[in-house]
Amino acid sequence: MKSLEHILEQLSLGKISSDEAAQHIRAMQSKTLGHTQVDIDRLSRTGCPEVIYGAGKSASQIIEIAETLVEHQQNVLITRIKEESVIPILENFPQANYVKTASLIRIEPYERTFKETSIAVVSAGTSDQAVAEEAAHTAEFLGNKVTRFYDCGVAGLHRLINKLPEIREARVIIAVAGMEGALPSVLAGLVKAPVIAVPTSVGYGTHFGGITTLLAMLTSCANGISVVNIDNGFGAGFNAHLINNLS
Amino acid sequence: MKSLEHILEQLSLGKISSDEAAQHIRAMQSKTLGHTQVDIDRLSRTGCPEVIYGAGKSASQIIEIAETLVEHQQNVLITRIKEESVIPILENFPQANYVKTASLIRIEPYERTFKETSIAVVSAGTSDQAVAEEAAHTAEFLGNKVTRFYDCGVAGLHRLINKLPEIREARVIIAVAGMEGALPSVLAGLVKAPVIAVPTSVGYGTHFGGITTLLAMLTSCANGISVVNIDNGFGAGFNAHLINNLS
Amino acid sequence: MKSLEHILEQLSLGKISSDEAAQHIRAMQSKTLGHTQVDIDRLSRTGCPEVIYGAGKSASQIIEIAETLVEHQQNVLITRIKEESVIPILENFPQANYVKTASLIRIEPYERTFKETSIAVVSAGTSDQAVAEEAAHTAEFLGNKVTRFYDCGVAGLHRLINKLPEIREARVIIAVAGMEGALPSVLAGLVKAPVIAVPTSVGYGTHFGGITTLLAMLTSCANGISVVNIDNGFGAGFNAHLINNLS
Amino acid sequence: MKSLEHILEQLSLGKISSDEAAQHIRAMQSKTLGHTQVDIDRLSRTGCPEVIYGAGKSASQIIEIAETLVEHQQNVLITRIKEESVIPILENFPQANYVKTASLIRIEPYERTFKETSIAVVSAGTSDQAVAEEAAHTAEFLGNKVTRFYDCGVAGLHRLINKLPEIREARVIIAVAGMEGALPSVLAGLVKAPVIAVPTSVGYGTHFGGITTLLAMLTSCANGISVVNIDNGFGAGFNAHLINNLS
Amino acid sequence: MKSLEHILEQLSLGKISSDEAAQHIRAMQSKTLGHTQVDIDRLSRTGCPEVIYGAGKSASQIIEIAETLVEHQQNVLITRIKEESVIPILENFPQANYVKTASLIRIEPYERTFKETSIAVVSAGTSDQAVAEEAAHTAEFLGNKVTRFYDCGVAGLHRLINKLPEIREARVIIAVAGMEGALPSVLAGLVKAPVIAVPTSVGYGTHFGGITTLLAMLTSCANGISVVNIDNGFGAGFNAHLINNLS
Amino acid sequence: MKSLEHILEQLSLGKISSDEAAQHIRAMQSKTLGHTQVDIDRLSRTGCPEVIYGAGKSASQIIEIAETLVEHQQNVLITRIKEESVIPILENFPQANYVKTASLIRIEPYERTFKETSIAVVSAGTSDQAVAEEAAHTAEFLGNKVTRFYDCGVAGLHRLINKLPEIREARVIIAVAGMEGALPSVLAGLVKAPVIAVPTSVGYGTHFGGITTLLAMLTSCANGISVVNIDNGFGAGFNAHLINNLS
Amino acid sequence: MKSLEHILEQLSLGKISSDEAAQHIRAMQSKTLGHTQVDIDRLSRTGCPEVIYGAGKSASQIIEIAETLVEHQQNVLITRIKEESVIPILENFPQANYVKTASLIRIEPYERTFKETSIAVVSAGTSDQAVAEEAAHTAEFLGNKVTRFYDCGVAGLHRLINKLPEIREARVIIAVAGMEGALPSVLAGLVKAPVIAVPTSVGYGTHFGGITTLLAMLTSCANGISVVNIDNGFGAGFNAHLINNLS
Amino acid sequence: MKSLEHILEQLSLGKISSDEAAQHIRAMQSKTLGHTQVDIDRLSRTGCPEVIYGAGKSASQIIEIAETLVEHQQNVLITRIKEESVIPILENFPQANYVKTASLIRIEPYERTFKETSIAVVSAGTSDQAVAEEAAHTAEFLGNKVTRFYDCGVAGLHRLINKLPEIREARVIIAVAGMEGALPSVLAGLVKAPVIAVPTSVGYGTHFGGITTLLAMLTSCANGISVVNIDNGFGAGFNAHLINNLS
Repeated sequence: MKSLEHILEQLSLGKISSDEAAQHIRAMQSKTLGHTQVDIDRLSRTGCPEVIYGAGKSASQIIEIAETLVEHQQNVLITRIKEESVIPILENFPQANYVKTASLIRIEPYERTFKETSIAVVSAGTSDQAVAEEAAHTAEFLGNKVTRFYDCGVAGLHRLINKLPEIREARVIIAVAGMEGALPSVLAGLVKAPVIAVPTSVGYGTHFGGITTLLAMLTSCANGISVVNIDNGFGAGFNAHLINNLS
Repeated sequence: MKSLEHILEQLSLGKISSDEAAQHIRAMQSKTLGHTQVDIDRLSRTGCPEVIYGAGKSASQIIEIAETLVEHQQNVLITRIKEESVIPILENFPQANYVKTASLIRIEPYERTFKETSIAVVSAGTSDQAVAEEAAHTAEFLGNKVTRFYDCGVAGLHRLINKLPEIREARVIIAVAGMEGALPSVLAGLVKAPVIAVPTSVGYGTHFGGITTLLAMLTSCANGISVVNIDNGFGAGFNAHLINNLS
Repeated sequence: MKSLEHILEQLSLGKISSDEAAQHIRAMQSKTLGHTQVDIDRLSRTGCPEVIYGAGKSASQIIEIAETLVEHQQNVLITRIKEESVIPILENFPQANYVKTASLIRIEPYERTFKETSIAVVSAGTSDQAVAEEAAHTAEFLGNKVTRFYDCGVAGLHRLINKLPEIREARVIIAVAGMEGALPSVLAGLVKAPVIAVPTSVGYGTHFGGITTLLAMLTSCANGISVVNIDNGFGAGFNAHLINNLS
Repeated sequence: MKSLEHILEQLSLGKISSDEAAQHIRAMQSKTLGHTQVDIDRLSRTGCPEVIYGAGKSASQIIEIAETLVEHQQNVLITRIKEESVIPILENFPQANYVKTASLIRIEPYERTFKETSIAVVSAGTSDQAVAEEAAHTAEFLGNKVTRFYDCGVAGLHRLINKLPEIREARVIIAVAGMEGALPSVLAGLVKAPVIAVPTSVGYGTHFGGITTLLAMLTSCANGISVVNIDNGFGAGFNAHLINNLS
Repeated sequence: MKSLEHILEQLSLGKISSDEAAQHIRAMQSKTLGHTQVDIDRLSRTGCPEVIYGAGKSASQIIEIAETLVEHQQNVLITRIKEESVIPILENFPQANYVKTASLIRIEPYERTFKETSIAVVSAGTSDQAVAEEAAHTAEFLGNKVTRFYDCGVAGLHRLINKLPEIREARVIIAVAGMEGALPSVLAGLVKAPVIAVPTSVGYGTHFGGITTLLAMLTSCANGISVVNIDNGFGAGFNAHLINNLS
Repeated sequence: MKSLEHILEQLSLGKISSDEAAQHIRAMQSKTLGHTQVDIDRLSRTGCPEVIYGAGKSASQIIEIAETLVEHQQNVLITRIKEESVIPILENFPQANYVKTASLIRIEPYERTFKETSIAVVSAGTSDQAVAEEAAHTAEFLGNKVTRFYDCGVAGLHRLINKLPEIREARVIIAVAGMEGALPSVLAGLVKAPVIAVPTSVGYGTHFGGITTLLAMLTSCANGISVVNIDNGFGAGFNAHLINNLS
Repeated sequence: MKSLEHILEQLSLGKISSDEAAQHIRAMQSKTLGHTQVDIDRLSRTGCPEVIYGAGKSASQIIEIAETLVEHQQNVLITRIKEESVIPILENFPQANYVKTASLIRIEPYERTFKETSIAVVSAGTSDQAVAEEAAHTAEFLGNKVTRFYDCGVAGLHRLINKLPEIREARVIIAVAGMEGALPSVLAGLVKAPVIAVPTSVGYGTHFGGITTLLAMLTSCANGISVVNIDNGFGAGFNAHLINNLS
Repeated sequence: MKSLEHILEQLSLGKISSDEAAQHIRAMQSKTLGHTQVDIDRLSRTGCPEVIYGAGKSASQIIEIAETLVEHQQNVLITRIKEESVIPILENFPQANYVKTASLIRIEPYERTFKETSIAVVSAGTSDQAVAEEAAHTAEFLGNKVTRFYDCGVAGLHRLINKLPEIREARVIIAVAGMEGALPSVLAGLVKAPVIAVPTSVGYGTHFGGITTLLAMLTSCANGISVVNIDNGFGAGFNAHLINNLS
């Protein structure tokens, strides 16, 4: 780890003692809150701030972590926020923005520059909207322009083909679909950009909560597709950001 | 069962005795060969002759059954024939026709009239050919005209769209695909005919021997698709025949 | 796509400009409602109107789509309607007909001619009724006569055999069953019509929400069966319509 | 354990010492062959001799166990015998009877009385014969009369119904089937005897090596069915024997 | 079917017309209630009355079926009764007996003789009680004496061994267990009676709602075990009755 | 069983009769409460007291069992306690300690000595806390010192490495993780102590309620890991105790 | 599709007839070889040439397709080549390069420029080499520099950490692992580049041919990972190329 | 990592330069052989030498790794050795010992002291021997005394109970079983030592190659059991060693 090596150098130059070195390393990397070790170092290490996964955490745990991050000059994204946690969080962070469709909260006191290139989020059906919005907001939070193309499922192929020229302008494409998940297969055969496929859990019977969609996407006959977990709009947005961020 | 009712009438008119009735019924329906009860009555009962599923049977068992059927004025189709059974069968039925690609044998001493309308067999990739041919030969054996459209997978959409006008001329469509099985979904959104989808077992990894394809087809977002077992070209051909046969 | 080709001709005759052509094509195919691209063209393309799958949509989304369809001279079928959406929809479409057993709404301001031939819906048990009714209503909505034969499970075989003469009068048969799903196997061995099998999710233990039924139907030893997704009464009704509709 | 209690009594009467008691108990229950502890006591404890499951054992291991059993006045049944073990075993036991269809060997130097009542073995298709024969031979080996009814699958219902009067004469019924496994469901609705269902592994695609058949049988809508492992003809024969053996 | 044959005879003797014959047959076998064809003939055909599976039926449907059965001189067992249906049913059948632990209702206006031999119901843990009681009550309802041995799981082996002498007095044994389901394996090695194993759905994690228990029971190394569906106490009781009923 | 042998000796010395022996044995081993046979002997037989699994039991059943154990000089641990059972239990055992995070109750009127060596409980994320606490409290209840290291997931490796020196001081390590479960793999490569891995059910999509974590842990490339059931903190604590308890 | 639009313009300008337009479009997109429609247009449409998946094709089919591609100025990559097809192909393409470890053949008569940035292929164990090499060769074939880091599994963490500075120099990272698949999780927490994870099928028991690895990777707690099919080195290499290719 | 910290100290004392430190660390930890990074440091880090998993490696790769280990004063264990690799390895290491039953090779030029306490390996059936022997040899290789108790399956309970006194003398118990895997459940209820359960893949039908056994073991109702991968005799032996090794 880079900073570790840096401190090592200081140590070898005699500028700090062996004990101080250890202390420095530990202090700069994480702040312990009892229940959680907040990973403050992540931004410099991986290029992205830590994001709070709200599903398994109480409102007060989330607030405590968010405060720590804001104190360390980081914007905060909270995903999978439970309905009952929204009000307490908004009360603590008046500038926070709650996105109901995607069940997430954005707290962005710090400005950032946006890339020139954009990410396209294409979805197959109306019911994939929540996941598509999670992807879109995540990408925007991380500093990307996002264009949205919804309800472009392959059962009415013209709906997709009509949008193709616009979709082709994106640097990366996120394809969100439930059911048989054929959208990324068809899409990847028509574009040059890498396609990140997100299976959604909306469906019934043999859809098996998205497993069928996931497997179909992994088994695609088209090239240029990689896949993330079921309903993982956040992961897709994050990956798309890493790619769009490449200079 | 129709014939049962007919005999019942005879019986009530006093033309036959109660015992004779029972004997007649049993005799006309099946001929027992020790290992097998050949269903001679099936043709009149369901409109299709009995077909021999070759996979679990020895060459001599198959020959015995085939002879019984031929004796009863029926053409014979043997599917899933094992390589080693081919020669002995061909020796017994010199007029038999062995179709290697589809691992089947057709013995057709009796003529039949063909329907005017046709069945289209559309396949996604080169490796789906064996299943597609099983479907096509089954349909032909049962008296249907068949048109073949192979290697029309959705990763290169134009390959399918170019064939669309011809595919639309068929009364029923059989869509054969492996991988993510998106072909029937795309196809059903573009045609008016019923689509019978056949998943194939060719693939690897998350394809799981065709399970993924099967599930994707069952979960299709498009209307007008029904599905048969993995690699069940015979079943698809048979179903297509039943539909094409409707006056 | 047919209309595309038609417009192409107009274009080549100089009657419209290249831009106009593109505009026409896009306009005639779908109307965008923000959340949804309504597929108005589907009726002429596939012979069936677009049906609204109610499960993932809010009452107001459904109303908006339904209005668009009605405006374009199409009857409307809404399936899998959520209890809480019924009242608002009925208030907007006073002529709408709510079918509680099948959780669907039919809005049919426009008349249509019915085919002479009929579709039989046969079900195995009392608890398969919801799915059977979804199939029956879908087929009726699309212009077919439907005859219903309920509670004909194979554990009391005489219940099925008694109905056989009437069942045989149908052009297509929909067989709805849960549990081990043996009904279509037994039925297909006794009739000439194609059988569309619908597994239902009612059961417990090794029934696995219908998976066992589905697999058993796909693995049937009888010929002439094709299968749709678990509980997919709509899909079965739609397929049966396509088949019954064949001239 | 009965004999344990008997020895306990001897011990309390002072007829044997505590050490002798322990030694007796151990000696009479099993004979250790290094690789195997032969359960000689099983006949008196459970009413049935130990049977040798041949699949995981070498010819010499089998011979050693068989000799031990014969020495202790027990007939020997060896199931799932590997092709290559047959000759060496037959050479050691000239009176042994090898049943190729069922892959088993019967060594029966000791006579036994047969029950008056019989067990019916009903199978669905030609390819279920191996399992059906394993069940039939196991039941015969254990001293039961067996009647066989093969190729009675539900796709041609008359084949089963014709045999019904004879099947009804059995005290217990073993129903062997592959594919969708509907035979026991139909059968149990027509008879008074308990039905032991045996799923077989013959099939393809969604048959999943017998899992589908197994699940369908467990989920049967008919009463009076219990199920054994896939291809477990031995288990079915053994269970049927226990039941037929009840005075 | 016996009665069918009887009527056939009447018909051949000219005592009834062909039409009357058909009418008789249909009338005597089932009474149609709109939603349900009540199988009145089942008692004479299979030796057991029809039992009402309460899970998928409304209180009024159940009451209607129960009344039909009572009218035809049959006692009534209703299993898997929903909490909210209990009161209305009890109001209609004041003599009905509601067994809360097993979620069933017994309506027994008609007397019956009990067999001399008994059925043992052995369960592994406290939480298997509901299923064990369903089995016990079903067997009692069908006219059997039942002895109960609860909380005899193999983790404390002495609990089972202490009860062994009493368990051995039963003619058939029902072994109810959740978790790893080892009880029937251990039990079958110690008794001579046939063992019907019932897996229960109580557990967590890798127990998978009883699938693990089911599979373990089917894979048992002990002989003499057959298995019914997960939580299927009714099926086990019914099977045990059929066996105990053998003269 | 030891005590069995002891009584046997008494018996052979004529100090007690055969009947008395049997009675003694049964009495000392379990106390029957109707629904439950309390295993009082377990402490002397396996070195650990019986623990009450609260999930499937009512408050009154639990209280009755707990009272029996306390009467027999045993401390009581109740795991998976349902929310609604807490108050009644606490009212009956005023000295009881309710641990909300881990859903368990400890009743410890009897003192015990603690081992000198300790058990480390390491968890990957905030949401694994409930399971980690169940493990920790179980181990403490059984007389072990426990050190806790939470939120040490591998995505921020330094969080784990910082704690390594302290973790290495433990005699046994319990590694609790959800998601992809990589923590035990990484940990086992860095320590000398045996690692007991506990998969947790917290996650979504392809996590499948902990199955993925479980499988990943079982398939670990690192040596020295054994695994317990999903969310089985109790089992891990118990195993760790057995190991830490070895002299 | 772009070229389609271009031809449309020509048509509207009267430079070509409507029939000519259709003919042109079809001709330029694919060349039909009977068994296969070669997708010549793919290079211009998606930026990558068509690659031949060798698994389901005969040597002569492969040769025919490869010749068509070479004739159209495209280099050829053949993956999953069967052992027996290698010699015939090499005889037809003397300049072809056979890579035994990765079971692929490269035919590269045409030069191309390489990107400056590189792709890192990191693998966990010796047995992942085949898949890692398929990824590396695919990426190289498509014009990328590749650096290889093999045997860096997490059980010996220092092996990975030692290579970290070099790995960090890549623009995209491919992480290949079998077993529990923890490598990408650990890696993604330490780098800024996007990570494409490839599960491999090498393992046993609960590894389930790579399913466990796949699921673990999809469920990773680390951000920045997307996943391809089991053993899909080609897909990973292709995706990495698309990303590295972004200007 | 200990040595890392040690070198750090040297560095801070100025005894070595920063560069030297890095070089030392890397050199002492692994030796790179091209295909493999041999983990020489593992012995000091985790207390056990690296073991060679033979399944995915060629004879020459194995020999190269083994030579490196022997050079570094380590004994060598090679598991899952392929038949064809045995001769070449034995030729290179004349002192090597090939254990055919367990498919492993032990090369032990260096002496070691054995612990006083022992490990018991208990197996259920004859066919579990290979796995049991892998466990036993692994434990012996690592310096433990091993006692073997084979063919103690629960279907003949006395076989296990007879051996109980001897089994109880071990400090750790490895329980190896296939089929329904009840052995560890029964065993853990009778002993005080920790039990490591190993499911084996020998079986058929619902045994699913050991999955059923694995799940049953994980779901055991008995306390004190932890589980390793299917057929993972090595892992069990290794874990048992770690536990037996605790001072």
